[in-house]
Amino acid sequence: MPRTSAIPSTLKKKAKEFGKPQSGFRLHLYTIIFEADTKAGKRFDVAIVIAILLSISVVLAGSVPQIDARHGRTMDILEWGFTLLFTAEYIARLVCVRHPLRYATSFFGIIDLLSILPTYFSLFVPEAGALLDVRILRLLRIFRIFKLTLYLDEYMMLGEALRASGRKILIFLSVVLMAVLILGTIMYVVEGPKSGFTSIPIAMYWAVVTMTTVGYGDIVPQTGVGKAIASFMMLLGWGVLAVPTGIVTAEMTSQRMGRRAPTTRTCPECLTEGHEATARFCKNCGAELPPYRYEPV
Amino acid sequence: MPRTSAIPSTLKKKAKEFGKPQSGFRLHLYTIIFEADTKAGKRFDVAIVIAILLSISVVLAGSVPQIDARHGRTMDILEWGFTLLFTAEYIARLVCVRHPLRYATSFFGIIDLLSILPTYFSLFVPEAGALLDVRILRLLRIFRIFKLTLYLDEYMMLGEALRASGRKILIFLSVVLMAVLILGTIMYVVEGPKSGFTSIPIAMYWAVVTMTTVGYGDIVPQTGVGKAIASFMMLLGWGVLAVPTGIVTAEMTSQRMGRRAPTTRTCPECLTEGHEATARFCKNCGAELPPYRYEPV
Amino acid sequence: MPRTSAIPSTLKKKAKEFGKPQSGFRLHLYTIIFEADTKAGKRFDVAIVIAILLSISVVLAGSVPQIDARHGRTMDILEWGFTLLFTAEYIARLVCVRHPLRYATSFFGIIDLLSILPTYFSLFVPEAGALLDVRILRLLRIFRIFKLTLYLDEYMMLGEALRASGRKILIFLSVVLMAVLILGTIMYVVEGPKSGFTSIPIAMYWAVVTMTTVGYGDIVPQTGVGKAIASFMMLLGWGVLAVPTGIVTAEMTSQRMGRRAPTTRTCPECLTEGHEATARFCKNCGAELPPYRYEPV
Amino acid sequence: MPRTSAIPSTLKKKAKEFGKPQSGFRLHLYTIIFEADTKAGKRFDVAIVIAILLSISVVLAGSVPQIDARHGRTMDILEWGFTLLFTAEYIARLVCVRHPLRYATSFFGIIDLLSILPTYFSLFVPEAGALLDVRILRLLRIFRIFKLTLYLDEYMMLGEALRASGRKILIFLSVVLMAVLILGTIMYVVEGPKSGFTSIPIAMYWAVVTMTTVGYGDIVPQTGVGKAIASFMMLLGWGVLAVPTGIVTAEMTSQRMGRRAPTTRTCPECLTEGHEATARFCKNCGAELPPYRYEPV
Repeated sequence: MPRTSAIPSTLKKKAKEFGKPQSGFRLHLYTIIFEADTKAGKRFDVAIVIAILLSISVVLAGSVPQIDARHGRTMDILEWGFTLLFTAEYIARLVCVRHPLRYATSFFGIIDLLSILPTYFSLFVPEAGALLDVRILRLLRIFRIFKLTLYLDEYMMLGEALRASGRKILIFLSVVLMAVLILGTIMYVVEGPKSGFTSIPIAMYWAVVTMTTVGYGDIVPQTGVGKAIASFMMLLGWGVLAVPTGIVTAEMTSQRMGRRAPTTRTCPECLTEGHEATARFCKNCGAELPPYRYEPV
Repeated sequence: MPRTSAIPSTLKKKAKEFGKPQSGFRLHLYTIIFEADTKAGKRFDVAIVIAILLSISVVLAGSVPQIDARHGRTMDILEWGFTLLFTAEYIARLVCVRHPLRYATSFFGIIDLLSILPTYFSLFVPEAGALLDVRILRLLRIFRIFKLTLYLDEYMMLGEALRASGRKILIFLSVVLMAVLILGTIMYVVEGPKSGFTSIPIAMYWAVVTMTTVGYGDIVPQTGVGKAIASFMMLLGWGVLAVPTGIVTAEMTSQRMGRRAPTTRTCPECLTEGHEATARFCKNCGAELPPYRYEPV
Repeated sequence: MPRTSAIPSTLKKKAKEFGKPQSGFRLHLYTIIFEADTKAGKRFDVAIVIAILLSISVVLAGSVPQIDARHGRTMDILEWGFTLLFTAEYIARLVCVRHPLRYATSFFGIIDLLSILPTYFSLFVPEAGALLDVRILRLLRIFRIFKLTLYLDEYMMLGEALRASGRKILIFLSVVLMAVLILGTIMYVVEGPKSGFTSIPIAMYWAVVTMTTVGYGDIVPQTGVGKAIASFMMLLGWGVLAVPTGIVTAEMTSQRMGRRAPTTRTCPECLTEGHEATARFCKNCGAELPPYRYEPV
Repeated sequence: MPRTSAIPSTLKKKAKEFGKPQSGFRLHLYTIIFEADTKAGKRFDVAIVIAILLSISVVLAGSVPQIDARHGRTMDILEWGFTLLFTAEYIARLVCVRHPLRYATSFFGIIDLLSILPTYFSLFVPEAGALLDVRILRLLRIFRIFKLTLYLDEYMMLGEALRASGRKILIFLSVVLMAVLILGTIMYVVEGPKSGFTSIPIAMYWAVVTMTTVGYGDIVPQTGVGKAIASFMMLLGWGVLAVPTGIVTAEMTSQRMGRRAPTTRTCPECLTEGHEATARFCKNCGAELPPYRYEPV
């Protein structure tokens, strides 16, 4: 991985888009919030990261029935505390940039808004009856975790590496989906609804469970033919991992053995072997070596 | 992967086999159907791909009992619609090439025929009672998905890469099958029918489920010895993935570290770097190198 | 993999140990059985391989209760047929070599003997009552599969590759066993017998099932702490595969990018970039290049 | 892996920290316990390793209810035997170094103490009622296994390799945890407590079980949407292993094929091979190369 110091902070790059103010209170606020060069800026970053992690823990804990029963009120108070904190942060961000609309419509601006809106919405939703609403609100708050990715360049680089390989991943995925479709339908025909394969989509779900080697066991083949086909599918899903790994290891091992003893290249003076393919002089006695012809192993 | 532009489209290559007509209406049809150079040709390709995906969705939906109960008639009508569309496409292909028989007997010609025949067969099969026939007909319609592979060279290249490694894959597979046979039979002896290992083939099925790390849990070892043998098999199946991966990573890491060490070693004459730790003369100009002391990283 | 033609057949090498006869009937028999140069020799090899596979299928089928009930007699007759065939082969091998004792005590000689003895033993064992004896006899017959490894050099090479990496594999395995021991015991303490973790060995069995990602589900953690520790173990077992794979891919990708654009090396004449580290002349205009200093990426 | 002979034994390095005595009985004891150069030193090492393995087997066996019932007394006696043995070893180590406090506070010193204290504590704990105490005591005794790592440098190197990659592993782990958090919460919303997803932490546990492809089956998605999201997660967890493996294999294979192609390109002046397909001048002597036409393999 390239050294992070060589890459300008993504945070800084994005912040420049929103417009750094010239002077005054807004500039002071900007350097704290959007930049991490000053002590205050660094402390702000750490504080926000801790706040995000704590607020997510509160959402997690609040979803556990036993904790909700005993500490429901405390959870609500903490949740409001964090919401007010993040609201203040959001307003501060909007205030101190020169193009607040650009920030509000950017990916991170939307995440920040989504992080605080649910709690306000919950004022209008009676929580006693609407369990699903509560669960959805909790989900939206969880998205605060994405704010963390602002703080580390490695995440951005990982994202770019994925985009670069995007086409290969899609081709691979489509082949896997075709296998799931064909083999799933075959099992649907062979096993049938009585064995749990009630429709082709369900059979495809079972095929994914099997070929990714997860193997819940909620649906299992009952017939002999079905078990045979399932075994083939398991070897396929596992083999996609095992066969290339074996080929790469074999390749690498034979390369290593080849590089250590290119015995066909001998110094005519001192008879030493093991010179590099591109070496022109013997590393042992300094004599000039005859040209080398590449021989694939 | 080689750049696709440097490789003539597989579709074009195959199409040339079937005979491109000289002129007239047939030539016009040919350029649309078999070639993708013109706007019409591209739109035709896109339309067929969408039609294939939609028709498969219809087969999938039709297999779900709830959807079949409520929208069965609509599904039938849609299915006939797609069948007529693909029949028209098939006839068009036969009409516009000069050697229709070659097309009809090729892989893609057979796929195209299999895509439309089932629906015609269903006229002769009473669907109410014969559930298995319905399931088989659905399976044959699913094979339309193979028509998609015409449209991307990457699929053809993937197929060729697999053929090239064919022998290695077979050797690997046979070793896995031998392990499944031997270890499965051992478990059959150790656990016996009372534990669910009712026959050697069933024990082999369990061995595949275990060694590919799928682990349904429909059959599990009950005895202590059985659990010990099963643990060995699990470590084997998982280890086949983990051990080579670890070896390759160790190899790569030590290569990378090894390459870093020689940078401190510079030839005083020509300033070339990258000499081996034990080299005594410069491989580029023959001058004598100052001594080197190995420092482990 | 090295080309098989460059490696003398293992079969031939081993056969030479046993002593090739000088002349006559024994020499003729020897060339058929131990060598594969003649047409008769090749046909013999093929015939024996087919016989081995068929005999194993008979053992497999015979273990299935339904097949044994309906065709038990046929299975017995076929089993005796194969036993007599392999006995004849065994005797022929002993007869036509000059040192029959060496053959009888070699790995393959013992396998051959084990392949035929069980059926003779079964004469002395009443099959009706002693189900375990029957199962053990079936197991010994299955070992015939090892005779197949004689016929392909790749198996021998695979065996040697494994022996070469033997030490690394043992180190790796011992670390895995230590993790299984420690984490299994921790789960035994945390979950206890009421949750199914009845003893440390059982907890270690569960740890293997979990860390190899098999996950039968016969034993699952019941407590919150247990589920957290189990999650850690699952990420460990899966991560051992995922993390090195990711590191190797990142390494390879950055190498590939590095080789394509070593932009620090520019030809002073034509300003072309992208010269190899060891190149001395510009590949584009022929001018001499300044020496290159290796910069690790 | 670097050759172990070139690396001073970690044991020796650490022992030097504790202070090797000058002479006499203590020096004699020191060379046996902390060094492995003499025959006595080697035998001591082997004896301690065997004692550790045996004592751990006793703890394992003692945890099995059936064995504890029948041989409980024997297990206790053996356990005391080992405890006294390790106590003697611990005292010997303290006695024969010059800075016993450094040893007592080092990692291995603490392990040694933890290995023997539990048995002494058990004198004060009535074992009949306090099952948990017994289980915890057994756990502490298991830590004796760490004493084994003293004896092999490979373990220390493995530890250092892990520390070197520490940051990459943490980044990777944090991405996985974010996926588990987000996708687990989504499933909690979609499936809900009725399907077994009783809280977000439980849903995250299920997400880990699924994405690491363990798949216990104790919790499974019940709704169609849930199964679809679960399928996506399974393909993600399995794909993280499969996609990079495939990319690395494709990369390696095309490199191997690429290296073969340039061998036909030879410089007419110096006969060097291995020029790039697009090179116009020889990188070794500067002479002009004949044109080259790219032929895909």
